[in-house]
Amino acid sequence: MGKIIQCVPNFSEGRNKAKLELILDEIRSVEGAKLLDYSMDKDHNRSVVTFIGSPDAVLEAAFRATSKASQLIDMSGHQGEHPRMGATDVIPLIPISEVTMEECVVLSRKLGDRIGRDLGISVYLYEKSASSPNRENLADIRKGQYEGMREKLKSEGWAPDFGPTDLNIKSGVTAIGARMPLVAYNINLGTDNLEIAKKIAKAIRGKTGGFTYCKALGIEIAERNIVQVSINMIDYTKTPLFRVFDTVEREARRYGVNITGSEIIGLVPMEALIDVADYYLRLENFHKGQILEKRMAE
Amino acid sequence: MGKIIQCVPNFSEGRNKAKLELILDEIRSVEGAKLLDYSMDKDHNRSVVTFIGSPDAVLEAAFRATSKASQLIDMSGHQGEHPRMGATDVIPLIPISEVTMEECVVLSRKLGDRIGRDLGISVYLYEKSASSPNRENLADIRKGQYEGMREKLKSEGWAPDFGPTDLNIKSGVTAIGARMPLVAYNINLGTDNLEIAKKIAKAIRGKTGGFTYCKALGIEIAERNIVQVSINMIDYTKTPLFRVFDTVEREARRYGVNITGSEIIGLVPMEALIDVADYYLRLENFHKGQILEKRMAE
Repeated sequence: MGKIIQCVPNFSEGRNKAKLELILDEIRSVEGAKLLDYSMDKDHNRSVVTFIGSPDAVLEAAFRATSKASQLIDMSGHQGEHPRMGATDVIPLIPISEVTMEECVVLSRKLGDRIGRDLGISVYLYEKSASSPNRENLADIRKGQYEGMREKLKSEGWAPDFGPTDLNIKSGVTAIGARMPLVAYNINLGTDNLEIAKKIAKAIRGKTGGFTYCKALGIEIAERNIVQVSINMIDYTKTPLFRVFDTVEREARRYGVNITGSEIIGLVPMEALIDVADYYLRLENFHKGQILEKRMAE
Repeated sequence: MGKIIQCVPNFSEGRNKAKLELILDEIRSVEGAKLLDYSMDKDHNRSVVTFIGSPDAVLEAAFRATSKASQLIDMSGHQGEHPRMGATDVIPLIPISEVTMEECVVLSRKLGDRIGRDLGISVYLYEKSASSPNRENLADIRKGQYEGMREKLKSEGWAPDFGPTDLNIKSGVTAIGARMPLVAYNINLGTDNLEIAKKIAKAIRGKTGGFTYCKALGIEIAERNIVQVSINMIDYTKTPLFRVFDTVEREARRYGVNITGSEIIGLVPMEALIDVADYYLRLENFHKGQILEKRMAE
């Protein structure tokens, strides 16, 4: 498969399909980049786009899309429910195959430098690319939103990593950062008791003492008359799916409840599932080079 | 990943490395074919070669290798412990990715036709490609070995599927057939009691009433002071790894014995492991298009 990274940019345009299509065309125009998915949200006035490809192709596609978005989207008139600070609001770079996080950090800096220099847009590096701990969390960077950025860019400790300290009025500010792929993973319980789902979510959630790289909520699935532990696995290499599944199963047992099934929403890196097989089969000395498809791609 | 098939030809030369290298060079010379592995056995005087690639590339590489083997190997002087009937003894074609078994059967006929016609070698189709039930099993086809082929080719019911009914003295006969990928899978038990491994092997083995697509033996691993159920999974899509693992675990429990681990020997198709994850996580509505690497390759 070679080196593959994933990019999930968010654009502050969720209502005008024609405009989004022009941005998507920029991604489609790059050989080696492959558009996988996009979704527009009218209330948020925001679109989430997913594409993958070789590192070079992804950087080029991200740059072209950001450039096009800076032409088409005017932040000075932007309204929408979701917090935002730029036409291209955030560009996460995600290692998928044969790429390290460190490489993605280097790539994010390269992209930030180019966007800052060529497009005159201020860039903050976030997550694994952050230049200081207070910039790791995207919410902290975006605090104040577009309207507060003119001041923020010049305030102490908030000089941009790339680009001008004077706000680009039309395009705002873009956050760029390397992060782990996120796996959206839900576990369904054989009960309609929401309290049980909430208690289990609390038990596995990193913030409340559970697994560090696990976010979880208990929710109702009314049409199926069951409840669900809705999970975001934010680093499956450190908090693996099987450990969360097994823990939810044990916790549910306390209440006499069974897991009826689980769901992976959207895309998942192959490795996250291979790790599950490795665990349950108690594999000894298994390495991923034994997977035919991997070997073929080497 | 596109269409990928695997080919595991066996050549009747296991002593002369230079000759084998010339055969391997033929495979290496085909763009889109990738040599993954080979092993020579002196006692058997036989080599097993593994390569993969697109259907066209694999057919071309198999043909070129067979052609070279017919020049370099003289069966009229061949000696070795393993049963054999031709310079290129057998050519299995194995669907790996986005290829059906039916497509592999068609390919095996195409390859057989070309080898019969251009190289003047008699070809029997076997396994899923067999032209009659008594030709499915390779051992039945090879019965009589090289020395008996002159007569066999002309005997009732044994006319070759392709090529001459007069034996090619130098090259002998080649079997070609489509078959499922084989997964070599061993399960280790926390005991040194060989009888337990043998009993469990008997319980899961298709021939003795177990799983249809499972071959199994109980063996001793002397250096680790344990016993092992050594398994060939001959169709993991119909007899999946997780079912065999779970059954071995339950059977072992009867004897108060635990599984200490399992091993996959050599290569394994990604799908065989994804199916394991799917089972243990009780995934609902999962489809393989959700795997990023698959999606990337589409």
